Amino acid sequence: MAGIIECVPNVSEGRRLDVIDGLAQVIGATPGVRLLDRTSDPDHNRSVFTFAGDPEAVERAALALVDATYAVVDMRGHAGEHPRLGAVDVVPFVPLAGVTMDECVAIAHRVGEAVAAKHNVPVFFYAKAAKRPERVRLPDIRKPEYEGLAELMETTHVPDAGPPILHPSAGAIVVGARPPLIAFNIELDTADLKLAQRIAKEIRESSGGLPAVQAKGFRLSDPPRAQVSMNLLDHTVTSLPRVWREVESRATAAGVRILRGELIGLLPLDAALAVTAEALQLDGFTRHRVIESRFLE
Amino acid sequence: MAGIIECVPNVSEGRRLDVIDGLAQVIGATPGVRLLDRTSDPDHNRSVFTFAGDPEAVERAALALVDATYAVVDMRGHAGEHPRLGAVDVVPFVPLAGVTMDECVAIAHRVGEAVAAKHNVPVFFYAKAAKRPERVRLPDIRKPEYEGLAELMETTHVPDAGPPILHPSAGAIVVGARPPLIAFNIELDTADLKLAQRIAKEIRESSGGLPAVQAKGFRLSDPPRAQVSMNLLDHTVTSLPRVWREVESRATAAGVRILRGELIGLLPLDAALAVTAEALQLDGFTRHRVIESRFLE
Repeated sequence: MAGIIECVPNVSEGRRLDVIDGLAQVIGATPGVRLLDRTSDPDHNRSVFTFAGDPEAVERAALALVDATYAVVDMRGHAGEHPRLGAVDVVPFVPLAGVTMDECVAIAHRVGEAVAAKHNVPVFFYAKAAKRPERVRLPDIRKPEYEGLAELMETTHVPDAGPPILHPSAGAIVVGARPPLIAFNIELDTADLKLAQRIAKEIRESSGGLPAVQAKGFRLSDPPRAQVSMNLLDHTVTSLPRVWREVESRATAAGVRILRGELIGLLPLDAALAVTAEALQLDGFTRHRVIESRFLE
Repeated sequence: MAGIIECVPNVSEGRRLDVIDGLAQVIGATPGVRLLDRTSDPDHNRSVFTFAGDPEAVERAALALVDATYAVVDMRGHAGEHPRLGAVDVVPFVPLAGVTMDECVAIAHRVGEAVAAKHNVPVFFYAKAAKRPERVRLPDIRKPEYEGLAELMETTHVPDAGPPILHPSAGAIVVGARPPLIAFNIELDTADLKLAQRIAKEIRESSGGLPAVQAKGFRLSDPPRAQVSMNLLDHTVTSLPRVWREVESRATAAGVRILRGELIGLLPLDAALAVTAEALQLDGFTRHRVIESRFLE
């Protein structure tokens, strides 16, 4: 087997369900690809598809999705809560099994060049596929949005591929490669929202906490309880056991017990096994020590 | 696909690395077989190879390993911590995918008969391949060890195949079929062998402890430390987190810290994920929540 990569494209259409169904079908109809998840939000006016398969199949499906989206989404009529630059807004490729990050970077560059050539759309490369340091973070690239991008395309936003001219209906596209993102929450045995907010603030990168961690405190009802809600942007930089320990030690110091963990969506195998390795204090325990994973390569 | 079986032979040589390399090459050179893991321990003077492939290829590789080992390992010069009866001590066949336990039993019987005929070595069948109820458990068969076996071969240890005469250099061999087994050790931050032996005795099934758990205490050198060495015969009956807690609580009560866990061979995916689920207090976390496992179905 050629390995497995994941692709999580964000499309600027979250309201017309027949259109979104059609795009999902384009992905699912690509041989060698499985559509694992799809989420659409009418307020954000945005859909996120998650699919995976062998690298060539995923590359083909991503290009087919771009073609299909450009035929049905016109940015000139688009409004929504979420920042975006184009009809296909961002296309990240994620290595899952038997594929390196470098290979995903190469796929991202190939897909970006192909879209630029075929559709005359300006392309920005981000995350591990960034060609300039100021384009590593997606929010930095996306800041001017579709409406403000045209006037910046010869100064701060010269595209990495394609013409420095915004495409009227397709806008621009951001393509990249990144590690898997993990959405993980920890519920505390207290209704004290302030505690969850304080812990979140202390552990998140933006306030000087753990690298590659986003965190926010919430209060849940029925029963009332506080939650630390987190995104791990790179679990090889800050792992699940690390955030667990950091939250647990702060909760314990406040005399509060952890109720449970909660995983949103799916977990990458390596992230799950890192937890196993730490809990059993195993040195060098990776997927190569798991019988079934040898049949994923 | 013809299905996949695993074979985990234990060879009584853990010190001469060139000899062990040669045996690993014999396995790896068999077409249709993948050598998944190899672990050697000089104190135990023992190596464990894990390989898998289609049933016919695995059967061929097992026989080739026996031939190669008998040419280079002589039990008359063998000393080590671990109980053993022969140069190739035990050869279990494990169904992994698309193969029944009955098929693995048939392979075990065929391999045992072939070794008896070719090498004149006494053979015992164990676990699911046992032909007598008192030979289901490996430790019962292995109890007299190589040094004590000769005088029992016409009474309690009449072999299931081959002559009732111990082979001088090869000893005897135990062949069988079983579900996946987890070989897991916990090292204690003490040289106190008695503590490891007491913990092992308290947690093993044979002394009234945890079901489907075998355990023994050892003392390792360099640095001197005590080890609780375990086999989990069915991790769905007694899990890794359970044995970890049972060992840890007893060690802690004796004022001793755990140094590390050690996995011998490979872990089944479900056993690894059960540890993840417990450590992160995740409800209903199974392989279906792991991205890559969608490609194992």
